[in-house]
Amino acid sequence: MTSLGIVAPQSMFFSTPLPLQSGAKLCDYTLVYETYGTLNADHSNAVLVCHALNASHHVAGHYSEDASTKGWWDNMVGPGKALDTNKYFVIGVNNLGSCFGSTGPMHVNPATGKPYGAHFPVVTVEDWVQSQARLADALGIQQFAAVMGGSLGGMQALAWSILFPERLRHCVVIASTPKLTAQNIAFDDVARQAILTDPDYHGGDFYEHGVVPKNGLRVARMLGHITYLSDDDMAVKFGRDLRSGAYQFGFGIDFEIESYLRYQGDKFSEYFDANTYLLITKALDYFDPAKDFGGDLTKTLSNTRAEFLLVSFSTDWRFAPERSHEMVQALVNNKRTVTYAEIDAPHGHDAFLLDDQRYMNVVRAYFARAYKEIDGGSLKAGASA
Amino acid sequence: MTSLGIVAPQSMFFSTPLPLQSGAKLCDYTLVYETYGTLNADHSNAVLVCHALNASHHVAGHYSEDASTKGWWDNMVGPGKALDTNKYFVIGVNNLGSCFGSTGPMHVNPATGKPYGAHFPVVTVEDWVQSQARLADALGIQQFAAVMGGSLGGMQALAWSILFPERLRHCVVIASTPKLTAQNIAFDDVARQAILTDPDYHGGDFYEHGVVPKNGLRVARMLGHITYLSDDDMAVKFGRDLRSGAYQFGFGIDFEIESYLRYQGDKFSEYFDANTYLLITKALDYFDPAKDFGGDLTKTLSNTRAEFLLVSFSTDWRFAPERSHEMVQALVNNKRTVTYAEIDAPHGHDAFLLDDQRYMNVVRAYFARAYKEIDGGSLKAGASA
Repeated sequence: MTSLGIVAPQSMFFSTPLPLQSGAKLCDYTLVYETYGTLNADHSNAVLVCHALNASHHVAGHYSEDASTKGWWDNMVGPGKALDTNKYFVIGVNNLGSCFGSTGPMHVNPATGKPYGAHFPVVTVEDWVQSQARLADALGIQQFAAVMGGSLGGMQALAWSILFPERLRHCVVIASTPKLTAQNIAFDDVARQAILTDPDYHGGDFYEHGVVPKNGLRVARMLGHITYLSDDDMAVKFGRDLRSGAYQFGFGIDFEIESYLRYQGDKFSEYFDANTYLLITKALDYFDPAKDFGGDLTKTLSNTRAEFLLVSFSTDWRFAPERSHEMVQALVNNKRTVTYAEIDAPHGHDAFLLDDQRYMNVVRAYFARAYKEIDGGSLKAGASA
Repeated sequence: MTSLGIVAPQSMFFSTPLPLQSGAKLCDYTLVYETYGTLNADHSNAVLVCHALNASHHVAGHYSEDASTKGWWDNMVGPGKALDTNKYFVIGVNNLGSCFGSTGPMHVNPATGKPYGAHFPVVTVEDWVQSQARLADALGIQQFAAVMGGSLGGMQALAWSILFPERLRHCVVIASTPKLTAQNIAFDDVARQAILTDPDYHGGDFYEHGVVPKNGLRVARMLGHITYLSDDDMAVKFGRDLRSGAYQFGFGIDFEIESYLRYQGDKFSEYFDANTYLLITKALDYFDPAKDFGGDLTKTLSNTRAEFLLVSFSTDWRFAPERSHEMVQALVNNKRTVTYAEIDAPHGHDAFLLDDQRYMNVVRAYFARAYKEIDGGSLKAGASA
């Protein structure tokens, strides 16, 4: 296994308006993306990797020799890695509304000549998938070998299998859920309220005030972090360890866990956009493909054609294994081919980003098997462009 | 079972300085308290009820015929109730640093002539117990029949059993823990950061600015509420129910759970003091009586003399049953008499405040049995004043 080395983002402008689930439309937009590996002659080896809350199109490789510019799933994607770029052509794309290059709230709204701010339309997982499908069209990819993602990225993969059943042969859904619970939504709403009530938010137009609602973003991120880690993992890593060995009897830092969370919150508030945070948590909350099928997930997935790999992690209390079980059951009800792995890992939701060999081996084996279809030429001629 | 009817708070001023765990001292202070029932001739039927985060001395009864002024444990305490005021003399006392009458951050610091604000000293569970012991002295109560509390109140009961082993015959610890986990502390710190970074907090001196850090308090309370309810209970009560039947595609209220939490947050921010919130969460975080015994809870409890009742609730993920198990095990290791009930209840941490008949019957039976010591005259003469 080697690294991809230095990679570079590309961008594509779309001048055809994109109708959104809300009824609004984006009159034009840009998607920023990266690709790794080589698209084969019949364009049958493409894998789309969808990102979660605070990630981006920068999935793997480096922007320079500086290791801090490493992609968020560099342990998963690269030459000889689980998703092997010697075999697959991998695409990472930044979602609309994000703050890493694709059109988002900090960009100029052509209708007003000012940054969108809070007027950027609320986008959904399905809207992202529609925009990604146009990128696939432009890249000449009629059918993906796989669409893959973890957490919110897994929701996009699942939505692909529902919206474009013929356009993916495999759907890889990791540490995800077919819909948020009331508790999930509750955490998201507390985070949003922290941002929305920060006086520096200025109703979303903070760009023109030259400020950033850092306090709100910081609290939102601290809270999010608690839900990404398991109780046990936090106990092992931090426990009740004191930073200076004794209680301070004030409101500064006593415990290591406080130091860690505040550091994470501070760092996040330096680079992440508040409007993007609001948009992405709304996309999470709204995702519920079974809503249009009377809540029946089996019916919802009845038109899917892909084969599925689902992975969950035992201590993930954000999107617990039970959420994956629901999806597996609904797929089995539809006689879909499903591989499911439940990894006994202590790291909570964050486990989907970490280097667990059992997890990586499951994904590696799955993609190795899927590659036989491509390499062995068992694909129907009509299935690839 | 009848209600206590109309009750009234009393207050007592203490002019002897109270040394605190932090090394600071309160030069004088007032405790507000209520009593229900009648102290018997040998002063052996007194029960101290300690309160949790946002409660007070107003445990039971009403301040008027208005039901909204009902005490926080009115379902537990009253004539014929589990803690029967026909038999017991029950005392509720407001903790130092609170905002319901006892000396707290909004009161004038005699040293400066201005409200304490953030200069109110950080108080601990043990400090509260010391102040309560002085109130007991003043009321002529040498030994309590029981000290009792839920959550943070249970920590006070446990601290009583350690600090004043001869001054209570029974210790009733409900939905509590011998110390907070890293995750518990993390939630507390996010709540504190929301308050501390609210510009209206003004470093704790918001009183003199004529404002209140409502946004911070609101977020803190919303977050707290999530941890008081169980995931399942939230799913049953709110699920993904939409307030207006359809997605709003904005940042207003979509889901009923959002409406509920924001309402709770708004209400709380109208009446609760921000400095008190900071102080009380610190008292929670700092509580760790085993800290002085190398983390050994068995050693910590080796000098206790009381009999114990512990109760936990199956879906309480704030202070899970496992936390009670630790206390039970340590008491059993010390050959203490322990009654333990684990109530299979769906309501999470909040269950300790709710009317579950199995729970109430456990407490009722325990206090009925304890009353035989008093009524049957089995107490040693020296044990009561």
